[in-house]
Amino acid sequence: MGEFDLIARYFTRPARRAALGVGDDCALLQPAPGMQLAISSDMLVEGRHFFAGVDPFSLGHKALAVNLSDLAACGATPVAFTLALALPTVDAAWLAEFSRGLLAVADVHGCELVGGDTTQGPLNICITVFGEVPVVGGKSQALLRSGAKAGDDVYVSGTLGDARLALDALRGRLRLPADLLAQARLRLERPTPRVALGQALRGIATAALDISDGLLGDLGHILKQSGVGATIDTDIAITLIAACADDTCATGLISLKKQLECVLAGGDDYELAFTAPVSARSAVQAASRQAATPVTRIGRIDAQPGLRLVNAQGQAVPGSYASFDHFG
Amino acid sequence: MGEFDLIARYFTRPARRAALGVGDDCALLQPAPGMQLAISSDMLVEGRHFFAGVDPFSLGHKALAVNLSDLAACGATPVAFTLALALPTVDAAWLAEFSRGLLAVADVHGCELVGGDTTQGPLNICITVFGEVPVVGGKSQALLRSGAKAGDDVYVSGTLGDARLALDALRGRLRLPADLLAQARLRLERPTPRVALGQALRGIATAALDISDGLLGDLGHILKQSGVGATIDTDIAITLIAACADDTCATGLISLKKQLECVLAGGDDYELAFTAPVSARSAVQAASRQAATPVTRIGRIDAQPGLRLVNAQGQAVPGSYASFDHFG
Repeated sequence: MGEFDLIARYFTRPARRAALGVGDDCALLQPAPGMQLAISSDMLVEGRHFFAGVDPFSLGHKALAVNLSDLAACGATPVAFTLALALPTVDAAWLAEFSRGLLAVADVHGCELVGGDTTQGPLNICITVFGEVPVVGGKSQALLRSGAKAGDDVYVSGTLGDARLALDALRGRLRLPADLLAQARLRLERPTPRVALGQALRGIATAALDISDGLLGDLGHILKQSGVGATIDTDIAITLIAACADDTCATGLISLKKQLECVLAGGDDYELAFTAPVSARSAVQAASRQAATPVTRIGRIDAQPGLRLVNAQGQAVPGSYASFDHFG
Repeated sequence: MGEFDLIARYFTRPARRAALGVGDDCALLQPAPGMQLAISSDMLVEGRHFFAGVDPFSLGHKALAVNLSDLAACGATPVAFTLALALPTVDAAWLAEFSRGLLAVADVHGCELVGGDTTQGPLNICITVFGEVPVVGGKSQALLRSGAKAGDDVYVSGTLGDARLALDALRGRLRLPADLLAQARLRLERPTPRVALGQALRGIATAALDISDGLLGDLGHILKQSGVGATIDTDIAITLIAACADDTCATGLISLKKQLECVLAGGDDYELAFTAPVSARSAVQAASRQAATPVTRIGRIDAQPGLRLVNAQGQAVPGSYASFDHFG
């Protein structure tokens, strides 16, 4: 048994929910009756999705969190995941912290590690995550990108833009006070997958996805797949940066232009963007309370294709906000 | 949309078996009633699992084939897979060939690409594959590593050792005539997952796995997890090299020692090793015919722990045959 087999032991715990866990050729999962399986894979590459030298606890957290965020976007309940890991060298201290961060998130969400692979190679983390979604009367309750209708409200969960602030600060492109940087950095390195909110929105939201590449770019996927357009209120959106919740931004530390750029196209937010009928406003608020996750209504879906930015007075806001391609 | 999103289009085809395929946050799979899901992940890294510059059609083939081999080892019927791919650069010709090789194997086995991820990074291919295994009377029909019993026969499918011959020849450690190298190289670069055999062995084999690291090392997993030992007849095993099927090896081109090393510890074979009761010999032969896959009985399971090598006369064969750790 090579050292890479030994590594696997860092991640091996007895199966609880899976019919068979780590240690055979395959893991075995038995979806509950009336459930279908939601599946998503994300690969994280050093220098592209995280900085070389990032603390391994945070990396373990983020690697699973970004996958759980995909389950959240479908309204799925996490069940299990596989981990494939390429490591340049075997560093026991690094592995101990990485697995601790990973398994802490797994435990919070009841998501069990059931298998995977470890090998020598440039640092690469590939996770495939499995969740359950009920099928009711033959119809899947999964939240898709394709169900937004003209007249629907557009919402986002939590806060937006802080991860991008942290990234810019860490790259030396922006100066932030230490306390603000520490707070923003947590949003970059330890995102919170909105799993409870996704589940609470089943049967309420008409479309949903998670924001990984920036609000406008990701919202564009909903618009395209639903065959609709949208109008977004930037005066509301700009309030979503947590770092600007007090007067910090008012002092000019971060320009309005930068704030808007971070909110609309920052990326790495892992919040949910979703749509729901106007008639469901109270149901959305109830889901938000049930999931203990704030949501903000930032606009509406239009029949006319395209994405329009307006201020509180309904006037067009100039500017182009492309998605950022992570570290690209 | 960046060029890495465009890449995904090489791999996107309409969902047939999946409830939802590529293009949303998650894929949705609906296991058939009475089925559980078998899941396996393998990560392939350049320089470790394949040579830099290997032809991309073969690489696409192998990447999926080694994952399907894990399903075969469980007796699972392939259903779907996800592909996460890190590429140093976008090379359209390379991608066209890689996807052609990958999807050709997928089509042979009715295994549908349902999702994944593409990103920039050192070449890395991570596939997670899903299969179905029936549950009968509350009992999974999956073939596990843990069911071998003293007195059982030990079998392997197909041929063994040729992949290792090719690897040694390609590394310049062995000279092979061009026709033999071409034949052996196909075994290294385009292994045949024994999917039909695995399914045919459900309810017959007591334990099974696929041979990726070498017969003896992998058989050791069955012995350990079943709490048994085994005796293997090396005079039978040595006949399993396809390259030696004619008189080539008799001429001394490949030494007996090298032949035995390749068969017992060559690796990259992706054949099945399995055990079955003596009373099931005719059932094993029927499964072999049904799957059109030859099987050879090479030994027996003992109550006494450990792995013993004997010749046709039952005399102990000296020598130590460690597993090779792929390209390590």
